[in-house]
Amino acid sequence: KPKFSTDEHPHRRFNPLTGEWVLLSPHRSKRPWQGQTEALDLTTAPSYDSECFLCPGNKRINGEQNPKYDTTFVFQNDFAALNSEGPKAQGEDPLFRFETVEGESRVLCFSPDHSLTLAQLDPEAMQAVIAVWQSQSELLGKKYLWVQVFENKGAAMGCSNPHPHGQLWAHNHLPTLVATKQQRLADYYLQHHGNLLGDYVERELQQEVRIVVSNHDWVALVPYWASWPFETLLLPRFNIRRMPELTAETRESLGEIIGALTVRYDNLFQCAFPYSMGWHGAPFDGQDHPEWCLHAHFYPPLLRSASVKKFMVGYELLAEIQRDITPEQAAARLREQSPIHYKSSHY
Amino acid sequence: KPKFSTDEHPHRRFNPLTGEWVLLSPHRSKRPWQGQTEALDLTTAPSYDSECFLCPGNKRINGEQNPKYDTTFVFQNDFAALNSEGPKAQGEDPLFRFETVEGESRVLCFSPDHSLTLAQLDPEAMQAVIAVWQSQSELLGKKYLWVQVFENKGAAMGCSNPHPHGQLWAHNHLPTLVATKQQRLADYYLQHHGNLLGDYVERELQQEVRIVVSNHDWVALVPYWASWPFETLLLPRFNIRRMPELTAETRESLGEIIGALTVRYDNLFQCAFPYSMGWHGAPFDGQDHPEWCLHAHFYPPLLRSASVKKFMVGYELLAEIQRDITPEQAAARLREQSPIHYKSSHY
Ligand SMILES: O=P(O)(O)O[C@H]1O[C@H](CO)[C@@H](O)[C@H](O)[C@H]1O
Ligand SMILES: O=P(O)(O)O[C@H]1O[C@H](CO)[C@@H](O)[C@H](O)[C@H]1O
Repeated sequence: KPKFSTDEHPHRRFNPLTGEWVLLSPHRSKRPWQGQTEALDLTTAPSYDSECFLCPGNKRINGEQNPKYDTTFVFQNDFAALNSEGPKAQGEDPLFRFETVEGESRVLCFSPDHSLTLAQLDPEAMQAVIAVWQSQSELLGKKYLWVQVFENKGAAMGCSNPHPHGQLWAHNHLPTLVATKQQRLADYYLQHHGNLLGDYVERELQQEVRIVVSNHDWVALVPYWASWPFETLLLPRFNIRRMPELTAETRESLGEIIGALTVRYDNLFQCAFPYSMGWHGAPFDGQDHPEWCLHAHFYPPLLRSASVKKFMVGYELLAEIQRDITPEQAAARLREQSPIHYKSSHY
Repeated sequence: KPKFSTDEHPHRRFNPLTGEWVLLSPHRSKRPWQGQTEALDLTTAPSYDSECFLCPGNKRINGEQNPKYDTTFVFQNDFAALNSEGPKAQGEDPLFRFETVEGESRVLCFSPDHSLTLAQLDPEAMQAVIAVWQSQSELLGKKYLWVQVFENKGAAMGCSNPHPHGQLWAHNHLPTLVATKQQRLADYYLQHHGNLLGDYVERELQQEVRIVVSNHDWVALVPYWASWPFETLLLPRFNIRRMPELTAETRESLGEIIGALTVRYDNLFQCAFPYSMGWHGAPFDGQDHPEWCLHAHFYPPLLRSASVKKFMVGYELLAEIQRDITPEQAAARLREQSPIHYKSSHY
């Protein structure tokens, strides 16, 4: 039998943040694709769309009018998944367990320009977005235990409006995936007397193979245990637990690396690369949380081209996540992309 | 404040099979949808397609020729995610943990007729499919610890070929989701001296609200903690741990209920209802496993119509599964569908 090669032989990798394994089948990427392709919208959106609920000055579905904002704009979601109006209740039957929730959901428009995406914002506009992530996290963090900052980008990710925007959902409980992460970070801290993500970023910087782009403060890499073909993890190279702790300097370098990463994403298949992204940091419970480290996940669905995505179905829903190309191959492909956006005149 | 109502107020429900919570926002189903819709293929597929890799007598991509089968046909996947040819290796570094895997993946054609789906098979053809699930599970179960029987149906579920078919992936480890379920069933058994799913099905039969359809041996219901809008759980009303234990009688009643469920699925939005489905039973380790109970999950992605699906993105990928319509509402809508397929002349 030949020597084990991660590029040739099926194997599983362990995700220390979730406790789950991922099945890797590198030899499988050769299979032909006759399945569904995504409808690619090749028309360029106009800078202003009179039908858009999010453009400045337009009316939303509930009749409210957006201000004529010129950087960012935050408002309460008109169809919020969370609210604080209901009564409290809970049930402890082990087969029918439930609890009511308290919270709110807000929408954050990244720019007044309907045609742009995060990847195309100039540095100043990017700073404005991060500043709102920061101030909203601080504000909502005073009222709620958890503030989930996230963005669904692109029709393939269920985004119903191309206007550049993200969301903030805040509530008084730790959601399932975060509760698991909290437990795993705390276990690692106890067992290894170290910060899991702090230790991890150092090891990755030594190995280099999974790094996509880095600067003095931040590193974007395809994690060893990535689920999605071009999934990335955005990690700090300094101690930081929560979004509000960003300084003017680390915010600037953060804007820079988000730009560098999302431009490479768009260049990979020459399209507005769809993804879901979001931030995880220590809960807003007033505790120190030395086991935590602020970080962002990018989960993009595309696999082979702008129109062929990876489907998390069948085996993935019933047994375990499966991937074809290796994280090392994905990182290499992203790394070699031009740092200049394909739509820019300098490309 | 008003009295708590599951149809009005946001709450979370606990999934005892996974240990995860689901966020329910029943009031949110009123939001408008301007996002992606699925391309609906309204042309009826021909009974034989000369381009199809799975039709009887056709050549597959690797040059092999399918036999002229007239009921079902099983073969080794030409682009298998698993194989047993590689060397063994493993790594114990807590941040870079991996292990090689051994296994195989097979494809099972449900029928020689390219145009049919499981929902349209006559009772005899359905018995043939279940008989293969049974014999293949038995065969592969002699060699491997776990045999995952599943079907991805429809382009929306990443199925690349409309020819009615499913898959079997078998390997010598318990996949992530099954390992969790194994642990939770065992914990419940220890704590409550009972079989979790056995206890659950009795409680659901009393409450009735989440039952879609049932017969003497089986019950199909929308579980209390369902993630997908029209997710169902197919449970036995008798003791059975693994697929090979089916008798002629319980196999017949199983065929009947699969037909009854999938016909209602198709009738709901008058389309070939996409889903991933699959079976979980006790591992093939020679142990008794009194905590286990054979069952199937159906995970369909549609939410509002044949073309609007639920996207598990953003908040779901970063925090927790979220759903809009309640399981009780979903069960009622499925229950009221005609038992006769909308494409049949008797409809
Ligand atoms: O095996 P297929 O049908 O080519 O592929 C499909 O099912 C697999 C198993 O659920 C998934 O891993 C793939 O993402 C999906 O496209
Ligand atoms: O809130 P939106 O953009 O209407 O909806 C989108 O994001 C939500 C949060 O990730 C998801 O629950 C929905 O399935 C998705 O369509």
